[in-house]
Amino acid sequence: MTNPVLAALGRPFRLGIIGGAPPSMIGPVHRLAAIMDQRFELVAGVLSSRPERSRAEAVAAGLPEARCYGSIEELIAKECARDDGVEALAIITPNDSHAPYLNLALAAALDVMIEKPLCNDLREAETLREAAASSGCAVVVTHTYSGYPMVREMRARYLAGDIGTVRLVQIEYLAGGLATAVELGPDGDQRWRLKPERSGPSLVLGDIGTHAHHLVSFVTGQPFESVSADVGTIVPGRKVHDVAQVRFRLAGGARGHLEVSNAAAGMSNHIRLRVYGENGHMEWLHRKHNELAIASLSGEVRIIASGQPMLTPDAQHSSRLMRPGHPEGLQEAVANLYCGLADMMLVRRGHPTSGAPRLVPTIDDGVAGLAFVMACLESSARDGALVRLDR
Amino acid sequence: MTNPVLAALGRPFRLGIIGGAPPSMIGPVHRLAAIMDQRFELVAGVLSSRPERSRAEAVAAGLPEARCYGSIEELIAKECARDDGVEALAIITPNDSHAPYLNLALAAALDVMIEKPLCNDLREAETLREAAASSGCAVVVTHTYSGYPMVREMRARYLAGDIGTVRLVQIEYLAGGLATAVELGPDGDQRWRLKPERSGPSLVLGDIGTHAHHLVSFVTGQPFESVSADVGTIVPGRKVHDVAQVRFRLAGGARGHLEVSNAAAGMSNHIRLRVYGENGHMEWLHRKHNELAIASLSGEVRIIASGQPMLTPDAQHSSRLMRPGHPEGLQEAVANLYCGLADMMLVRRGHPTSGAPRLVPTIDDGVAGLAFVMACLESSARDGALVRLDR
Amino acid sequence: MTNPVLAALGRPFRLGIIGGAPPSMIGPVHRLAAIMDQRFELVAGVLSSRPERSRAEAVAAGLPEARCYGSIEELIAKECARDDGVEALAIITPNDSHAPYLNLALAAALDVMIEKPLCNDLREAETLREAAASSGCAVVVTHTYSGYPMVREMRARYLAGDIGTVRLVQIEYLAGGLATAVELGPDGDQRWRLKPERSGPSLVLGDIGTHAHHLVSFVTGQPFESVSADVGTIVPGRKVHDVAQVRFRLAGGARGHLEVSNAAAGMSNHIRLRVYGENGHMEWLHRKHNELAIASLSGEVRIIASGQPMLTPDAQHSSRLMRPGHPEGLQEAVANLYCGLADMMLVRRGHPTSGAPRLVPTIDDGVAGLAFVMACLESSARDGALVRLDR
Amino acid sequence: MTNPVLAALGRPFRLGIIGGAPPSMIGPVHRLAAIMDQRFELVAGVLSSRPERSRAEAVAAGLPEARCYGSIEELIAKECARDDGVEALAIITPNDSHAPYLNLALAAALDVMIEKPLCNDLREAETLREAAASSGCAVVVTHTYSGYPMVREMRARYLAGDIGTVRLVQIEYLAGGLATAVELGPDGDQRWRLKPERSGPSLVLGDIGTHAHHLVSFVTGQPFESVSADVGTIVPGRKVHDVAQVRFRLAGGARGHLEVSNAAAGMSNHIRLRVYGENGHMEWLHRKHNELAIASLSGEVRIIASGQPMLTPDAQHSSRLMRPGHPEGLQEAVANLYCGLADMMLVRRGHPTSGAPRLVPTIDDGVAGLAFVMACLESSARDGALVRLDR
Repeated sequence: MTNPVLAALGRPFRLGIIGGAPPSMIGPVHRLAAIMDQRFELVAGVLSSRPERSRAEAVAAGLPEARCYGSIEELIAKECARDDGVEALAIITPNDSHAPYLNLALAAALDVMIEKPLCNDLREAETLREAAASSGCAVVVTHTYSGYPMVREMRARYLAGDIGTVRLVQIEYLAGGLATAVELGPDGDQRWRLKPERSGPSLVLGDIGTHAHHLVSFVTGQPFESVSADVGTIVPGRKVHDVAQVRFRLAGGARGHLEVSNAAAGMSNHIRLRVYGENGHMEWLHRKHNELAIASLSGEVRIIASGQPMLTPDAQHSSRLMRPGHPEGLQEAVANLYCGLADMMLVRRGHPTSGAPRLVPTIDDGVAGLAFVMACLESSARDGALVRLDR
Repeated sequence: MTNPVLAALGRPFRLGIIGGAPPSMIGPVHRLAAIMDQRFELVAGVLSSRPERSRAEAVAAGLPEARCYGSIEELIAKECARDDGVEALAIITPNDSHAPYLNLALAAALDVMIEKPLCNDLREAETLREAAASSGCAVVVTHTYSGYPMVREMRARYLAGDIGTVRLVQIEYLAGGLATAVELGPDGDQRWRLKPERSGPSLVLGDIGTHAHHLVSFVTGQPFESVSADVGTIVPGRKVHDVAQVRFRLAGGARGHLEVSNAAAGMSNHIRLRVYGENGHMEWLHRKHNELAIASLSGEVRIIASGQPMLTPDAQHSSRLMRPGHPEGLQEAVANLYCGLADMMLVRRGHPTSGAPRLVPTIDDGVAGLAFVMACLESSARDGALVRLDR
Repeated sequence: MTNPVLAALGRPFRLGIIGGAPPSMIGPVHRLAAIMDQRFELVAGVLSSRPERSRAEAVAAGLPEARCYGSIEELIAKECARDDGVEALAIITPNDSHAPYLNLALAAALDVMIEKPLCNDLREAETLREAAASSGCAVVVTHTYSGYPMVREMRARYLAGDIGTVRLVQIEYLAGGLATAVELGPDGDQRWRLKPERSGPSLVLGDIGTHAHHLVSFVTGQPFESVSADVGTIVPGRKVHDVAQVRFRLAGGARGHLEVSNAAAGMSNHIRLRVYGENGHMEWLHRKHNELAIASLSGEVRIIASGQPMLTPDAQHSSRLMRPGHPEGLQEAVANLYCGLADMMLVRRGHPTSGAPRLVPTIDDGVAGLAFVMACLESSARDGALVRLDR
Repeated sequence: MTNPVLAALGRPFRLGIIGGAPPSMIGPVHRLAAIMDQRFELVAGVLSSRPERSRAEAVAAGLPEARCYGSIEELIAKECARDDGVEALAIITPNDSHAPYLNLALAAALDVMIEKPLCNDLREAETLREAAASSGCAVVVTHTYSGYPMVREMRARYLAGDIGTVRLVQIEYLAGGLATAVELGPDGDQRWRLKPERSGPSLVLGDIGTHAHHLVSFVTGQPFESVSADVGTIVPGRKVHDVAQVRFRLAGGARGHLEVSNAAAGMSNHIRLRVYGENGHMEWLHRKHNELAIASLSGEVRIIASGQPMLTPDAQHSSRLMRPGHPEGLQEAVANLYCGLADMMLVRRGHPTSGAPRLVPTIDDGVAGLAFVMACLESSARDGALVRLDR
């Protein structure tokens, strides 16, 4: 992959990061993903909501000491005063802070990478979308899995008509991290996800349901038309949702089922997407993320893999190790989203991009995710009644 | 496996078969399954509803010519007049004939193996159950997949508490045979399944939905409490159902999702059952039917296989090739149901059985299957409203 | 599959069986395989070398009591005196009895199914081949794995040029049954395989090495040109060979490696064959015996499976459950060899066969197997020196 | 993972890189691996043997312009004259330059990461080892695959006795990049690997055979005792080796087979290692590199995966995404080797390390690799005669 940012600016974009102190897993992932392809240089940060800790962790993470700040407000104030201040922010803080932090960033005219869910409320999401539109800023929502090359291949092939029109979709995202009552454990009170006021109206839907929802629309190009959902809790005594089962229809009429749980004992971040068309189906499995299986009507299954020569440009431009059998991972998938953010930032500044299609999830996808969450909750509250999603 | 029938009677039971002329796939499967373990001898048959063809095909299938009949009425009349007449009937005819044929068999005091679905109507099913109870006859419904050794292992381990109490269930049965509009093809009018008046109120639910339903109850030991279903058709112009998506609750409160389609392009009789408990989950996949995967909370997966020494007696008694790595198949799974029928017949006659647990699907399971079908249809007609199953 | 034997004779061939009393695993497999397709009727037998036990076990196996004999000599004498005597014998006794029993059968003009290895000595094998030729009898050697539909598919596709000319072959057959010193266990002295005087010059080569050797020649159509082998024992104190590593060249010049062990701890009758040609490779794995994987130069892998419509006639005629996703097993593979024996018997008697290609391993393959064993032993005795196989 | 380099020095080590201009695949991999964990900062480089191109590519790769040099001699001269000059060099140039470049680096007292094979000649390798010993410099050979967490887990478990003493080993490394005569293609003359004078005495053995050799010794802790090899070419007209089949014995007496080819049509950098002990076996497959399969005597297979809690510290310290189901890739495996180099550099400088075991391949492994290559070639020249490796 050539580097259109270096070509255009002679340097990477300057990025600040909000959140991600230990024991965050995504903190290091974002920091490395941002710099991996030299689209961004990480120059400033606020790693924790506690000012002292924030600065110490930012230093430990290798950020320049003078630009390790105690709060997002401080960061924005001081960076905006610099000639070489940050041009973009990565917001990877707990869900309930997404909306206020994003508003601050947009007000400062900064482009943004923001973790999903966009926020905890649909009206707020719509307001954020308006703010983003007014600002002209680029906003990418970190729907990591759409950054995998073979998910992009699946999309490209679906849109090219390889299996005909979609008739049925199955998506499942099953994790086991909450299969026991960890909230009652020794460090349970430090887990913000298990506090409803922080993680939002539905932990499982916000945390992984929005990923699943996005994957379906990303690959098929179709929004959700309606849902019938049962959302609840399978671990006794838990105060947040840990399971959701959602039947849905896509705009084109296809049926689908989405099933997510983070309390599925023994599952390890398992994601599987199957899209059935008139002439066959395609399957992508996170555990084999470098592969895509394509079945024909006869039942023959073709397995193609990252790095192979027959892939579409969307997949080829999303791989760094361009030889089959050299595995990439989650880190590179996130890096692909940062490349997309950089492309959007170049466009905004009037520069040419690498020419790769813009495949990244935007604030529109973030709003659609919230709308999906809210529709599921409404349906579930009404015993699974059909709820249509406005569009 | 020792042979309790030979031990008790000095000869196999005498079996007559109704149905299964070419191009039936299950005809040869039943005929071989019945005799495979010398529990039954196949001595009489009616292979087709057309008398001439029936006799010719029965002869071609190797039945004694004198006992190849033109109708079930003729078979019953003549066989009951013999000292060495049939003691059991296998009924493997189109769905709409199940009820009348089973009634005839029961009236003649014959034990029965009958293909699923038990019949096409719930009230009829309940009446059949009463008739069977009155007659004292054994009735086994051919829910083939519960005959696989590793499905029985899954059940035995679940009931032994290996993964704790069930919290979530996923079952999918996806086939691709009807992914195109075969009913419009050259031999479309010969396909009775595609005629609603023959295949019953819901093709997909009767044909494979009842299999999926049975597997869940078989393994967990729990009946269905309620359903919320969307049942319909994904191939344009089709008059029968080819897809059903069913959320359910088990009697113990666990959630589940059941998804069946015979129009899932590219799928080859794919069945997957996952049962999640408090401490892990188990997965059985038809494509790897000789294996069972057991995942612990830590995510470690243990794969055990047919023929291995640590299996429970239920699985061990269901295998013929008692060494790991020597694959059995569908044929043996059906044969295991015939062994179960023979066990029930021995019990009825006051003989000891092999001592193996009676694991076979009975008429109660057949009735439960119909109740499930009807509840799904009611729910679907009411936009997925929750429908409780009486028990 | 139509039944050419019934068509030609109006009845199945009459078969006698030698060997297979409990705890033999292959005894029941052969008895069922023979009758599975109504090519044969099992009418006489000698199940053990001890006359009393032989008769009792034959009766228990369901053979007609009057034709349960105490020795092969008795069986041949009495059956040959009957108008309806056996026409073929299945010899499934310990290796050291193969040669004398086969000689008796041929002398009585009986066609034969015989377990591998053909015998324990190459010169003896060649003499047997001459005897068979003189007698005109059909002899099939039970190389079970070549009876699987997808192995036959692999052969048909290789011979059709689908991957170009073979350049490299990998075959491994690894089992774990002898991974511990079972010969020192409680029933160790009953295991004839562990006594060199019974199992022949090399247990592992005779028992499974000949299977592996046959698979390579069967699929590629090429005999072995030379070997360099290391044959030995990995379980301390063992008197028979339990491991062999054999580099080889095929007649066409391709390189290959064959690795067999029955002391590979944790392996369950694992067989994997890969054939690499100019344009791709094919892989067959016993654990997924209903599938064949075909890789192109680009690395794309196509997986085709038993029952699918694009298969060659060789595979289609070898399947009973002609719909994808309905698994067959080892039992059907052995039955396919019996169908082949029946075809050869029809040819010999001047009848038309089913027209299916004759794919069964003959006495020529048995002799080739012995030649392979002997060449490996010679090479191993000379520190892996290259040994050419005469042809 | 804490960062012992930052803890000790307050900054990363300064690294220079030699080689890796486009279209090199490993160039970007090394550059990113080096900086990924902030053990190294990449400050200088010579990316090509042509001075102009070298400087241009180094600038394009983001190196500081003033330290983009035209030759390794220039880099060493100028960097050694700086107070903040490089402390280590990564040498990732064609094989024939390894020895002279490593000598230059050692003479300048620089620590080194060097691509395999160490060089093209055994005597030269031994001389390099002496030079390294005299200099006291750390030298890591890039045997990438030993950097994967689950390969390290396999080693830790083997050494802990989980499967007992090794009896049999199977290793295969099969790639398809040279399955066609690419040397005759349009850019064939630019492929240095296909020129024997550059890639050394045996392309396939140097390129991937040394990887396979290292994996076996790495996991079992045992050097090779003897080999019997057949090394050659399967693509007609090729001047370099593209296949090798090597039987071997380990120092402890275990048997093994090593098979490598880069002309195995349809294979995508496939590596599989199986180690069989007294009580079971373990298997690692590159395509599933985040997993390790452990089979017991009973045939039960346990699959454990990267990120799970039961892993040994060696694997845990080699993962960044410490949650199961979040895949890492090749990039991280190489980064783990750089962490090891940094640890060695800290030791050399008297600093404490992270306490992680030193698992990286050193110059001793490089020499052992060359000795293995030479022994295989000698054996192959003598028709597979047994050749012992001096130690």
